[in-house]
Amino acid sequence: MSMVQGANATGVRGGEAPRRSVSILGATGSIGRSTAQVLGLQRARFTVAAVAGGRDGDGLGRVAIELGARFAAVADPAGYESLKTRLAGTGIEAAAGPQAVVEAALRPADVVIAAIAGTAGVAPTIAAIEAGRTVALANKETLVCAGGPAMRAAAASGARLLPLDSEHNAIFQALGDADWTTIETMTLTASGGPFRTWTAERIASATKAEALAHPNWAMGPKVTIDSAGLMNKGLELVEAYHLFGVAAERLKVVVHPQSVVHGLVSFADGSVTAGLALPDMRVPIAHCLSYPERIESGARKLDLAAVGSLTFEAPDLVRFPALRLAMEALAAGQGLPTVLNAANEIAVQAFVDGRITFGQIAVVVERACEAALAAGVAREPADVSEALAIDHRTRQLAAGLLD
Amino acid sequence: MSMVQGANATGVRGGEAPRRSVSILGATGSIGRSTAQVLGLQRARFTVAAVAGGRDGDGLGRVAIELGARFAAVADPAGYESLKTRLAGTGIEAAAGPQAVVEAALRPADVVIAAIAGTAGVAPTIAAIEAGRTVALANKETLVCAGGPAMRAAAASGARLLPLDSEHNAIFQALGDADWTTIETMTLTASGGPFRTWTAERIASATKAEALAHPNWAMGPKVTIDSAGLMNKGLELVEAYHLFGVAAERLKVVVHPQSVVHGLVSFADGSVTAGLALPDMRVPIAHCLSYPERIESGARKLDLAAVGSLTFEAPDLVRFPALRLAMEALAAGQGLPTVLNAANEIAVQAFVDGRITFGQIAVVVERACEAALAAGVAREPADVSEALAIDHRTRQLAAGLLD
Repeated sequence: MSMVQGANATGVRGGEAPRRSVSILGATGSIGRSTAQVLGLQRARFTVAAVAGGRDGDGLGRVAIELGARFAAVADPAGYESLKTRLAGTGIEAAAGPQAVVEAALRPADVVIAAIAGTAGVAPTIAAIEAGRTVALANKETLVCAGGPAMRAAAASGARLLPLDSEHNAIFQALGDADWTTIETMTLTASGGPFRTWTAERIASATKAEALAHPNWAMGPKVTIDSAGLMNKGLELVEAYHLFGVAAERLKVVVHPQSVVHGLVSFADGSVTAGLALPDMRVPIAHCLSYPERIESGARKLDLAAVGSLTFEAPDLVRFPALRLAMEALAAGQGLPTVLNAANEIAVQAFVDGRITFGQIAVVVERACEAALAAGVAREPADVSEALAIDHRTRQLAAGLLD
Repeated sequence: MSMVQGANATGVRGGEAPRRSVSILGATGSIGRSTAQVLGLQRARFTVAAVAGGRDGDGLGRVAIELGARFAAVADPAGYESLKTRLAGTGIEAAAGPQAVVEAALRPADVVIAAIAGTAGVAPTIAAIEAGRTVALANKETLVCAGGPAMRAAAASGARLLPLDSEHNAIFQALGDADWTTIETMTLTASGGPFRTWTAERIASATKAEALAHPNWAMGPKVTIDSAGLMNKGLELVEAYHLFGVAAERLKVVVHPQSVVHGLVSFADGSVTAGLALPDMRVPIAHCLSYPERIESGARKLDLAAVGSLTFEAPDLVRFPALRLAMEALAAGQGLPTVLNAANEIAVQAFVDGRITFGQIAVVVERACEAALAAGVAREPADVSEALAIDHRTRQLAAGLLD
């Protein structure tokens, strides 16, 4: 009988397995701190090989000590002194510079948490993929900017990619052992962000504080502003396209303000499987850390009767043009998603710097895409270097639009 | 790279596979008619080996002709003449009597749809299981009355059981390839039935017409009345216990009036996977017929934005004592679930016959369970014969309570 695997389930397995080693790229960021919380609950199961961070040498040093890491790398050389000072006498090795972060990615580890935000995260993530590691992927840019090359690198090295975004992680769990060729659609949910019920006019003139007030998720500022305009969901569609190998027209978005259902997979017969959890990044982090086992994450458990009501609505591509632009870029393919992502980084930074309004973010992105197409920049990147070159050239074009 | 299995998914696979043969036990009932609808859409993929029905020989004959079955068996010998008349000149073999239904179950077939309602369905279902068939299980009594013996028979023969109830099918899909020992809870949803918002007093005096007015599902009368009192959900907990090998205390019920989420599985890390579909039995039927492939079922596809809102509430064990009784019987184990089911069949029939009120159904069940315990009837059944003996003896006890 194939349905029952042994006796009655008695819950999570005991901790007899050998300890699994983890490296955390982006250890001082939002995902990194949540990862440290989960590891703090599970000291008997994990060791930490390396941690890497961006600028905050002292903070990174503290994380390294807390987790008992062997190696700590700060990307910005200006952070080296404070890192070294903090680690003095601990025996933890300190290093600085982008190459040191790549070294952290390459240290032997059973799982690499790839959670450096932005384009800075691409090189170390690709290094871990090329080294054949199991990579829990939270850095969006690896797939959005260089999805084709990254997936080819994974295929060549045998690296396993585990999705760490809540939406993609939910879909990965909802897929289970389904034959992926039988999938009819894949749907990512979007909370709708702080502007879900706002008029187009009010969204257009939203302040930075308003854009940063996400109703459900505590995330870094770039992701939070992307969420407010639904660009974040558009970038996640590009990620899903690469991660799951599903055609662009099968990828859907539904707005779901409670952020409890994170992703859904539908099949020809009308069946739908879904991944749910309370909105807490410790859930997908714990899933990736222990996959295919399960560990306690410290997150509260979902009680649907307590939640009471889950609501869903179609996304409004008029009030949220960034999502429309991302869907168009995904459908166009080639280097368009790379261009879109780079233009968006420039536009969001201009908004953060007070140079453009919230409504102008999508306008700048659209114009930059048109300029990149006209300049022949939006070709399919053959490798990561070409993807980064497209990214660089688009940033110049987008910056030019702001002058 | 283990996440992508080939190129971009292009949907349901073509029909190159050899045709799969199906037998339908309970072909003239609700599940049987829905199965015929799905098969009607998928003539190139399936052949029909045998059909079996209860009393309606003419109706069974028409189904046999429609599906091109080779053998048709009517359980009630009184239906034989009309079956034979209907099948005259078709070349379809006709037979009658309970043993003929077992013969239908034993005809070589790739999938047996076991959808005869009530205790009458146990013997042919067990026969198919003992023969090592893949059995799509809709007959609740096989697991509720004789779950231990049925699962042991499946283990011995290598039969594969596919759950055809929407709730268990959803959980089966939500489980995917999860390690079942890591499951924390399994939750079946209940629509709450027509009396969800009624007071205990109004439920107690509900009429037969009121109990038969199910808001979401078109089912047979016994199941519909069981649903109105939530006994149906209690019996499904017993089924889940046997099918999935999950301890009784890990099995939960949540009331969900829209019947879109059918079942959920939760894990230690806070992740939950769920199976969803519009309430249409063609969905799990198509899933079981084609498993692990997928076929169109004819059912409408779920559009969450169109559904709008999904609500959840805790079940009320005071207003719905039948669910409490089932949970207690499951926790007590031994032969108690067998006793519960038999007592409930007698009590529901007495309600249908106008002999007792709706509120007295649970009272009769509870008293019959107590009487069975006192009489030493509720022992763990060693085999199907013992389970049926417990069933028989309990029916006598319950009938005695009605005199």
